[in-house]
Amino acid sequence: MTAVEILDYSGVALFAATGALAASRKQLDILGFVFLAAVTGTGGGTVRDLVLDVPVFWVAQPFYVLVCAAAAICLFFAAPLAESRYRWLLWLDAAALAAYGVFGAYKGLLVSGSPIVAVVMGTLTGTLGGILRDVLVNEQSVLLRREIYVTAALAGALVYVAAEALGVGPPVSAAGGFAAAFGLRSCAL
Amino acid sequence: MTAVEILDYSGVALFAATGALAASRKQLDILGFVFLAAVTGTGGGTVRDLVLDVPVFWVAQPFYVLVCAAAAICLFFAAPLAESRYRWLLWLDAAALAAYGVFGAYKGLLVSGSPIVAVVMGTLTGTLGGILRDVLVNEQSVLLRREIYVTAALAGALVYVAAEALGVGPPVSAAGGFAAAFGLRSCAL
Amino acid sequence: MTAVEILDYSGVALFAATGALAASRKQLDILGFVFLAAVTGTGGGTVRDLVLDVPVFWVAQPFYVLVCAAAAICLFFAAPLAESRYRWLLWLDAAALAAYGVFGAYKGLLVSGSPIVAVVMGTLTGTLGGILRDVLVNEQSVLLRREIYVTAALAGALVYVAAEALGVGPPVSAAGGFAAAFGLRSCAL
Repeated sequence: MTAVEILDYSGVALFAATGALAASRKQLDILGFVFLAAVTGTGGGTVRDLVLDVPVFWVAQPFYVLVCAAAAICLFFAAPLAESRYRWLLWLDAAALAAYGVFGAYKGLLVSGSPIVAVVMGTLTGTLGGILRDVLVNEQSVLLRREIYVTAALAGALVYVAAEALGVGPPVSAAGGFAAAFGLRSCAL
Repeated sequence: MTAVEILDYSGVALFAATGALAASRKQLDILGFVFLAAVTGTGGGTVRDLVLDVPVFWVAQPFYVLVCAAAAICLFFAAPLAESRYRWLLWLDAAALAAYGVFGAYKGLLVSGSPIVAVVMGTLTGTLGGILRDVLVNEQSVLLRREIYVTAALAGALVYVAAEALGVGPPVSAAGGFAAAFGLRSCAL
Repeated sequence: MTAVEILDYSGVALFAATGALAASRKQLDILGFVFLAAVTGTGGGTVRDLVLDVPVFWVAQPFYVLVCAAAAICLFFAAPLAESRYRWLLWLDAAALAAYGVFGAYKGLLVSGSPIVAVVMGTLTGTLGGILRDVLVNEQSVLLRREIYVTAALAGALVYVAAEALGVGPPVSAAGGFAAAFGLRSCAL
């Protein structure tokens, strides 16, 4: 597995986990968990692929849907044990934002070749999963909490694109982008 | 008209009717009815077609838009006569979920060939219209009412895909899927 | 610049400005301004291009994203000076609805050749930016305020499509459509 593949699967699984935690807070049934996990886990990437006009990743490779379902089922049993599900949700969301933001920038750059599009794609895919989740469960969006949210996704995408432009090489660029986004977002948690 | 065509038009018209009832509850004007009916009636299928990368059904065949408009205009005059518009909304939504869920599974299977994608598509298209409607009118989503909602759409899609895999033939598979989804959902109403 | 190009850039910039004003009302940071401005400014056109199956305009031409960012940054400094940000938001939204509604009808007609699709596209792209913005900031949607909203977008699109069918020529058709939509919407402000 390459560095960007790790980011991709981590981003999907982590966002799916935050969706499942949101379902747990709303006391949904197990399929409600799977539904919210799947929408949160795949939502950002789906919009990314539609906008970039490439095949939607989970249609080309349905294994991603199973990853979301597995994350949801694990959390269906594990979430009631957690002391603060919302705390967990925020930290997992921070990691998902960092991973998926950098992967979004990678894919945006790969497909369009434009650094502006890559940065916009990274910011969008890093934040969209969490926004979709919050709209679906009718909670105040992370976007509105006046914290370093969009900023973190943008920073991760910028660091990745800049490092690639400097020829640093994918594993280091990806790690740098992830660290920038996760580090910044952590400051607000 | 084949069995799946009936499901398709019924799903669009029924979802459109639920959108019009939601507009009635919010006392919108007649074009507000048509707008909400059109978004609710075509929303799920639009996302389905975008994700499957096939032409969006109502662009290829604008007649669907007129079906939504007709449903909206009928309900603009009929809805004030109903004793409980919300009760009607829920029952029509159940039928729409069942019809459109099975049709989504049919189209997903046809285009992708993957049973997983077909089941996901069925669940998504059966539930998305209602979710979009509830987000647009700013009401608590059917998704969050802790009832058999996602479960019903999933059951309908599963029954249809399983029956097709067993070679049962479209009319019976479609009827079985519809009955499974509508029956399950009815239990919660 | 042709008449329709002016409508296109004006629509994007004006919607972006309303997104920035919404961010100002929620006291977001500067990147929250840029994010909301970009989503509001490009959202309607993105859905339009996806549904019409043409390249998404801001991926083909990333300059649009910079237009949104510039509008957001200007308003980050100017908005606190305004007496009533919500009043400004409504008037800018009316102009954006009129400009983008007519441009949506123009593009829908150009791509699909169908007047029904053109009118639906105009109505959708004129109203979707504002709806997305209101959902994201969790405010009551303009759609629900029981004012002439969908009606205005529809009127603008209809006038434009009818004038084109009569062979009036783009600059006059566009001006007529804009005037119809903006005039009608103004009545409610």
